[in-house]
Amino acid sequence: MEEHTESTNLPEKRRDDNTVYIGKKGTMGYVLAVVTQFNNGATEVCVKARGKLISRAVDVVEIVRHRFMPNAKIHEIAISTEELTSEDGSKNKVSSIEIRVMK
Amino acid sequence: MEEHTESTNLPEKRRDDNTVYIGKKGTMGYVLAVVTQFNNGATEVCVKARGKLISRAVDVVEIVRHRFMPNAKIHEIAISTEELTSEDGSKNKVSSIEIRVMK
Repeated sequence: MEEHTESTNLPEKRRDDNTVYIGKKGTMGYVLAVVTQFNNGATEVCVKARGKLISRAVDVVEIVRHRFMPNAKIHEIAISTEELTSEDGSKNKVSSIEIRVMK
Repeated sequence: MEEHTESTNLPEKRRDDNTVYIGKKGTMGYVLAVVTQFNNGATEVCVKARGKLISRAVDVVEIVRHRFMPNAKIHEIAISTEELTSEDGSKNKVSSIEIRVMK
């Protein structure tokens, strides 16, 4: 966990590095979180998700762009593989996505 | 359906426009489809998915890159919204992803 925090919160770009992690709540809650971050002055918001929640991350970004912020642009989309260690010590690989949206 | 076929099979780039559509079969079947297209001479393969299958598309590309083709690169990732008309005539919006992988 710490590694991820370090790599995504580089000090020199902290102000713009607003990240929304997609979880199991409803899609619109995350849409609101992204729009709120932009309204609070962020120029870029990063939407991150893992595993089956990846499709929800795409839904969130698409709803933000089409319904709330027609001028927002997708700056970058990156996919990667993360290795998670479960409680019994076994390791599982899981895909992840990172979508950077700019106002 | 016809519209999609037309827009993704532009004649001038047909040779390289090898597309794998992600469906509900097992992930490894699609991994095999992508690797086979590269082995058959494709220099770029496009992996497409809609809705909840988007996360499977990411899994497929990540497995191709990490397990079978370490030199493959992600050329482009695009997300969009498609409007589907169901049998009763109602329209539904669904997110989609397109991941272009290059050998």
